[in-house]
Amino acid sequence: MIKKEARILGIDDGPFVKGKKQRVLVVGTLFRGGSFLDGLLSTNIAQDGNDATRKLVKMINRCKFRPQIQCIMLDGIALGGFNVIDIHQLYEKTRIPVITVIRTMPNMQDIRGALSHVKDGDKKWALLSTAPVVRKIGHVYCQWMGIPEKKVLEFIRTSTTHGNMPEPIRIAHIIARGIVTGESKGGA
Amino acid sequence: MIKKEARILGIDDGPFVKGKKQRVLVVGTLFRGGSFLDGLLSTNIAQDGNDATRKLVKMINRCKFRPQIQCIMLDGIALGGFNVIDIHQLYEKTRIPVITVIRTMPNMQDIRGALSHVKDGDKKWALLSTAPVVRKIGHVYCQWMGIPEKKVLEFIRTSTTHGNMPEPIRIAHIIARGIVTGESKGGA
Repeated sequence: MIKKEARILGIDDGPFVKGKKQRVLVVGTLFRGGSFLDGLLSTNIAQDGNDATRKLVKMINRCKFRPQIQCIMLDGIALGGFNVIDIHQLYEKTRIPVITVIRTMPNMQDIRGALSHVKDGDKKWALLSTAPVVRKIGHVYCQWMGIPEKKVLEFIRTSTTHGNMPEPIRIAHIIARGIVTGESKGGA
Repeated sequence: MIKKEARILGIDDGPFVKGKKQRVLVVGTLFRGGSFLDGLLSTNIAQDGNDATRKLVKMINRCKFRPQIQCIMLDGIALGGFNVIDIHQLYEKTRIPVITVIRTMPNMQDIRGALSHVKDGDKKWALLSTAPVVRKIGHVYCQWMGIPEKKVLEFIRTSTTHGNMPEPIRIAHIIARGIVTGESKGGA
């Protein structure tokens, strides 16, 4: 069993205007289980770019509380639009288990279609196709690497305290949105 | 008695390099008591400037969850160095009770001396001199307006769940620091 106060790093991106190609804010919240925020990381990535994996690895490995992080939770497999994360590389370069969490099963055909209009779309599609399979875990859909399914379920259960999404991701979302737009509220 | 889930807006500023006169990030966390973050506001102010009161009033009055806020908690009476907040005006223009919280009793002689080197120092000193008196409340020192002392104590007690500072301020501090520097941790 994982501890109730297991340290989880929840990651989400801020909003951005499509096509503007500006830098997108990425926020990482260090949580003790689902109960409270204990630290914050931030970086930025290129909208629809290819630097998400590299920037996340750098953000995580250089931080002082790196040894405490027991699990990385991502709001889906891409940040800043189609800046797709290489889950294998993120796990290999941090040696921390990775879990992606989404509310609904992704429609891969739609995604493939959208990628045909994006620069480096083939490369991004290759990352998506070789990523761990998406499976239903409790009320959400997850991909994971570096931990067994049983532990994924425990991490999701322990950290989901308000609403359907794990608290580390829910709060990373509220923070990134509030910093970029000036105002955000839970659920928005 | 105030409710355990009373909505409190906790405000703190991000770090800045002295003398650089850049804009300083200000973060407002909407908390339910001391238990969890439910929304986020942000704005920016001039380092050592005079716009803190105006920017806070604007940030608070325009936000959608304005009617839910039962109390504004500030990490001291100034943001961004010597951008002193006019507590009377903040209360009058928002009609929300205001509490400032600091860990130690301020040395007014030292502050007066420091202000002599700051632009508009006399104006800032006038704001400090006419602000509500600082009083010990539990383990911290507070000034307040718009509520009785008994309620101040209740708000401080209800919201202080980790460490000595009320959670809304502690978390606003972690977020503002993490966004500006890329990394922050509780207590740092």
